[in-house]
Amino acid sequence: MKPSVKELISQMTLEEKAGMCSGLDFWHLKGIERLGIPSVMVSDGPHGLRKQDEAADHLGINDSIKAVCFPPAVLSACSFDRDLMHEFGDAIGKEAQANDLSVVLGPAVNIKRSPLCGRNFEYYSEDPYLAGETAAAFINGVQKHHVGTSIKHFAANNQEYNRMSCSSDADERTLREIYFPAFETAVKKSQPYTVMCSYNQINGTFASENPWLLTDVLRGDWGFKGYVMSDWGAVNDRVAGLKAGLDLEMPSSNGVYDKEIVAAVKDGSLDERILDETVERILNIVFEYTEHREKQEFTLDADHELAKKIAAESIVLLKNDSVLPLKETETLAFIGEFAKKPRFQGGGSSHINSFRVSNVLDVVSENANITYAKGFPANADIYDEALAKEAVEAAKTADKVVIFAGLPDSFESEGYDRTHMRLPDCQNRLIDEILAVQPDTIIVLHNGSPVEMPWLSRVKGLLEAYLGGQAVGEAVADILYGKCCPCGKLAETIPYKLSDNPSYLSFGDGENVTYQEGIFVGYRYYDAKEMPVAFPFGYGLSYTSYAYSNLRIDKPEITENDTVTVSVDVTNTGDIEGKEIVQLYVRDLTGAARRPLRELKGYEKVSLKPGETKTVNFVLDYRSFAWYHTGIKDWYAASGDYRILIGASSRDLRLSEKVHLTTQKLLPLKVHMNTTLGDLLADERTAGYAADFKKQLEDIFGASSSQDKGDGDVAISDEMNNAMIASMPLRNVVSYGMCGKKELLDMIEEMNRL
Amino acid sequence: MKPSVKELISQMTLEEKAGMCSGLDFWHLKGIERLGIPSVMVSDGPHGLRKQDEAADHLGINDSIKAVCFPPAVLSACSFDRDLMHEFGDAIGKEAQANDLSVVLGPAVNIKRSPLCGRNFEYYSEDPYLAGETAAAFINGVQKHHVGTSIKHFAANNQEYNRMSCSSDADERTLREIYFPAFETAVKKSQPYTVMCSYNQINGTFASENPWLLTDVLRGDWGFKGYVMSDWGAVNDRVAGLKAGLDLEMPSSNGVYDKEIVAAVKDGSLDERILDETVERILNIVFEYTEHREKQEFTLDADHELAKKIAAESIVLLKNDSVLPLKETETLAFIGEFAKKPRFQGGGSSHINSFRVSNVLDVVSENANITYAKGFPANADIYDEALAKEAVEAAKTADKVVIFAGLPDSFESEGYDRTHMRLPDCQNRLIDEILAVQPDTIIVLHNGSPVEMPWLSRVKGLLEAYLGGQAVGEAVADILYGKCCPCGKLAETIPYKLSDNPSYLSFGDGENVTYQEGIFVGYRYYDAKEMPVAFPFGYGLSYTSYAYSNLRIDKPEITENDTVTVSVDVTNTGDIEGKEIVQLYVRDLTGAARRPLRELKGYEKVSLKPGETKTVNFVLDYRSFAWYHTGIKDWYAASGDYRILIGASSRDLRLSEKVHLTTQKLLPLKVHMNTTLGDLLADERTAGYAADFKKQLEDIFGASSSQDKGDGDVAISDEMNNAMIASMPLRNVVSYGMCGKKELLDMIEEMNRL
Repeated sequence: MKPSVKELISQMTLEEKAGMCSGLDFWHLKGIERLGIPSVMVSDGPHGLRKQDEAADHLGINDSIKAVCFPPAVLSACSFDRDLMHEFGDAIGKEAQANDLSVVLGPAVNIKRSPLCGRNFEYYSEDPYLAGETAAAFINGVQKHHVGTSIKHFAANNQEYNRMSCSSDADERTLREIYFPAFETAVKKSQPYTVMCSYNQINGTFASENPWLLTDVLRGDWGFKGYVMSDWGAVNDRVAGLKAGLDLEMPSSNGVYDKEIVAAVKDGSLDERILDETVERILNIVFEYTEHREKQEFTLDADHELAKKIAAESIVLLKNDSVLPLKETETLAFIGEFAKKPRFQGGGSSHINSFRVSNVLDVVSENANITYAKGFPANADIYDEALAKEAVEAAKTADKVVIFAGLPDSFESEGYDRTHMRLPDCQNRLIDEILAVQPDTIIVLHNGSPVEMPWLSRVKGLLEAYLGGQAVGEAVADILYGKCCPCGKLAETIPYKLSDNPSYLSFGDGENVTYQEGIFVGYRYYDAKEMPVAFPFGYGLSYTSYAYSNLRIDKPEITENDTVTVSVDVTNTGDIEGKEIVQLYVRDLTGAARRPLRELKGYEKVSLKPGETKTVNFVLDYRSFAWYHTGIKDWYAASGDYRILIGASSRDLRLSEKVHLTTQKLLPLKVHMNTTLGDLLADERTAGYAADFKKQLEDIFGASSSQDKGDGDVAISDEMNNAMIASMPLRNVVSYGMCGKKELLDMIEEMNRL
Repeated sequence: MKPSVKELISQMTLEEKAGMCSGLDFWHLKGIERLGIPSVMVSDGPHGLRKQDEAADHLGINDSIKAVCFPPAVLSACSFDRDLMHEFGDAIGKEAQANDLSVVLGPAVNIKRSPLCGRNFEYYSEDPYLAGETAAAFINGVQKHHVGTSIKHFAANNQEYNRMSCSSDADERTLREIYFPAFETAVKKSQPYTVMCSYNQINGTFASENPWLLTDVLRGDWGFKGYVMSDWGAVNDRVAGLKAGLDLEMPSSNGVYDKEIVAAVKDGSLDERILDETVERILNIVFEYTEHREKQEFTLDADHELAKKIAAESIVLLKNDSVLPLKETETLAFIGEFAKKPRFQGGGSSHINSFRVSNVLDVVSENANITYAKGFPANADIYDEALAKEAVEAAKTADKVVIFAGLPDSFESEGYDRTHMRLPDCQNRLIDEILAVQPDTIIVLHNGSPVEMPWLSRVKGLLEAYLGGQAVGEAVADILYGKCCPCGKLAETIPYKLSDNPSYLSFGDGENVTYQEGIFVGYRYYDAKEMPVAFPFGYGLSYTSYAYSNLRIDKPEITENDTVTVSVDVTNTGDIEGKEIVQLYVRDLTGAARRPLRELKGYEKVSLKPGETKTVNFVLDYRSFAWYHTGIKDWYAASGDYRILIGASSRDLRLSEKVHLTTQKLLPLKVHMNTTLGDLLADERTAGYAADFKKQLEDIFGASSSQDKGDGDVAISDEMNNAMIASMPLRNVVSYGMCGKKELLDMIEEMNRL
């Protein structure tokens, strides 16, 4: 039976309580033997276990146990598949139980603000809805085994440069609409056992000591019940952190900060009840795990198969001018060392010691028609003339060429950001050389974040394998040869060039990083700016085709208390079985606020046999239409029209319908001397007050304006007069002699009471 | 003799002094007869006099005196010609003296943040250097006649929507580098008698009551000596304004605010000395004018000729596929009502009651080969089938067609902003129809701010006449027929479409307008974003051609106390005489800060006969290389390389050289617990302190990192280790046990004393 945590705490010394708030070492929480509190272990993840072996150091640098490397988040998010993510989490939960791990450190749901972020491969998406849904499904999968997750890095940790000290400076609306919802959705839908706060500051306050972030928003607004741990070394001021809601410091700081907690309680600057509550939150989760130990059976081999399935259902086919799938009868050249040594994961804390790695060349080796040429090295940017020549010769004589390209480990990693978005020059050069001799060329990319593709218009096939996990070779082979119908779609936009990116002019600053693009991140930016992109968010091809029809909305008129069900029929119009990702976007037509042209508010993945039709349903609620209004500190959707758009990608919108929302929610009146007549006239509550001033001003301005006397030369137009009246602040009715100051102040007070 | 102002003030009552701080009416300052203080008049301008006639109302709405409408700022700035602007100012000064005006309200130097701003036609440029140089030359021209100018609208008044209440929210670097320098340059080079503060707030404080703006920056940093007046109705809190440095309230508020001043002095909340100093600043300028009355001879006819010259030397030839100049022998169709009723100025306070307006049709009427077809109305967006048909018929049979297109008055004006960047649909439609039958088509544009040109690739000639002033007809005719060789260049970028603009995602908000693009305004943005534009800043064609050669820099190595002289030879390689605008841009290669790719730091206009070569010289100083460092509250250029670029436009850079700057100016050390090891290592003053920590961390991380064991799968790369060390904040050396906290704090204190 779960011990009474409160009772245990009452038996602890002050020093013991302070000690519970930091790690025993790099990977364990402290236990207290005399009280029967076990020391439990946590482990890096989340796309596999990076459990540091007993024999290894505890700094997290040496080899971890042999484990299964599932596809990193960059790829698995492209599945757009909640069930698959749940299955993925389920496997991780079982492995963790079998390996005595109380918490797996992940998933990582930071928004991809820039393609340069070195850690993008660990993150799901540029879109907060997709990231949140994906994370929640994964977490529910893990936690059904009573193993915790630690959703990270909370929050606005979007670059690696100076990540331990820089401040992400973003306005609240941007945080609430873009950088927070993935965490919010996960908390509300899957209640992760723990949250990991990020290294960085947010608007000048470290995430690790930010009471607004860790208490008001996370616990207050969203209802988080677990404990917050620090990213490794993220603690700046331990006592401030404790007060803010940071429960567990990781890893151990050798007692340095524990002593500060003790001293603060002793000198009265820290209320001991805060410490007690902190320990209680930690122990609740510890016992949630220890009281539900499961005997788990899992095999690395079976999980390897799951890793393959996730990869195959996530890899994105980006281009196919009738060159794919490959045929067994074709003579092929496989070029590039990635064919032999695929890059399938990234460097840093998420790095898995894979028990087996499949490469595409071994997988297809029984096919005698394939010539392999190394072409270029997988792990460096070195152009080798002999290798290139051999590759070009191989390309010339083949029916088709598949080039396995990608980013070397040194190009992207946790810890630092890219400075450009290019493939190694040696690869682009060889691709050019091969395209000069072989038009039927297919590129397979192995990369953690998008690359510029100067050869895009000249290749006939393009497969984005991202970082595919240890079964990448089998998954890629199955897609190339059509054993598996590609069904992944992009969880991020691929821009043509780095400078197209919305954060380009502020990303990577050293101290204060201004999120100047605000809510216009990813497709929200490219769409608003009407900018061409290489591939839009949500895009992905298939070997079959789908038709969309019969869009229905159950209620064309809704209120803020309603949900609306949207249904659409999707038909497989091709010859083979496949899966389509149907996307729902919402567009605000009310004009009440500056908003993106469309935002993802629903998606479903549906499996269809040839000729089969299925109905896909989405349920939208008030939040689906709302934006975060900082004036009322709440989500708000104005009364008016909204467009529901159904698409195969963010730029391939097939069907649309309008809904009309009526909300009783009125924004509070805050009238003051500088409220404009225009604003008063636009609000039915105050229009009457402003009408008389308007009339008087029209008499002054309008009647005497110089209209066109036939020469087409207008001094003051009606439009100008109207605009001048609308933009006039109330204060000016006093200087125009239309109202005394006292009288006006009374009127303002009256309006504010409405 | 100038009376002793201090003596006069000592004889005034408190009420008289307060009264001196606001207008008598719409256009006059108050006088005090018993003290011999005259009531002087001010008048709108600046591209002509908008003096309200005695018979007319004083609200500034009815007709003003007949005057000369010179080209508005949007066009005259394209002259890139300091001498011409001086001549322009000189004419305005004479007219003002002759018309008993003490101050002409202008020039307006606000930066064109967005092409949508309704008042852009009154502003010079998107570039602060060009705007400042242009304004200073004009002001010196006016003020040599002891008539004052009122440079406006100070500051950051970049949209019309809610201009009286909205807040322009920009960081200080952006204000100092983009929105202030035109004012700063004018104050330093031409000491305008008055400055007009803007309506808007800046970062939440009204310009009219902003002590930082009106006192610290304007008077303290720049040395302004004159008085500050409010834009008409810009006063919000009169007493706060007085304290902040707002001297004169305009127009009269019927004594309302004067009484508040009196009350504030009486209740002790306003020091009477502040009031005395304010009155002193106003009277100094009043007497500067009254003591230097000149008998001026000027004729409207002569000034009309000057208006024509300014227009002709400013109009920009944007495209010419061998269709211009026109020949007298050609059969031509002139289409569009602008040919008969040119739009030559904008609506609002700058609107001149022109004594004469020339239109191109009258000017060329002696040429029998021209058919005129109205095509579309000048003042509305109405497609008329009969008019269109007539125009298309005329186009078919002509050798060439000239379409006079542009924006109706209702499309842009003081008081409101455009919502799109298109020409009237009727015009684009007719242009398409004409292009379908006539390939040799030339467009002449009459507009106050750029328009989208969907037909750009299909027309052969394009002349940007902007708003050309009352002699526009003659100027356009002279350029079309080659009597005048075009020599204007764009003072702003013409983007392809509205959404390309840097401010697109924040322009026109109602309350707080976030200047999210920061310093990246105009070409600074398009260049940094590598974005194609229709026509770049500084671009303009000629009927002749120029070659650039022999770039010399007198000192390749400079210090912060040096100036450097840059010389380049320019040769007229064509057959006719012309004028070339040679531009100098500077690029910072030091990497010390995020900066534009290049910034205009010099320009010269040079007149060249065919075959003639002249040497053009530029002098650069420390400021030419510097950016505004908010940390030190000063301009700063780091030691290192800078590239000097000489070009015919911002994207037609012909020659370049490097200079190396060495500055003794060291940024002050501000080391704290979160300063990174990387930052300390990069500064030679602190590198020694950090070196030992680095070494210890390398021993911990580096030696044990998992390198590629041959499978190409790297867990932690050397790059990651190096980045982790560089990004580590000092605080973490304590938790790593490398240093005690006390010891570290002492070390930090020691570094900060360096």
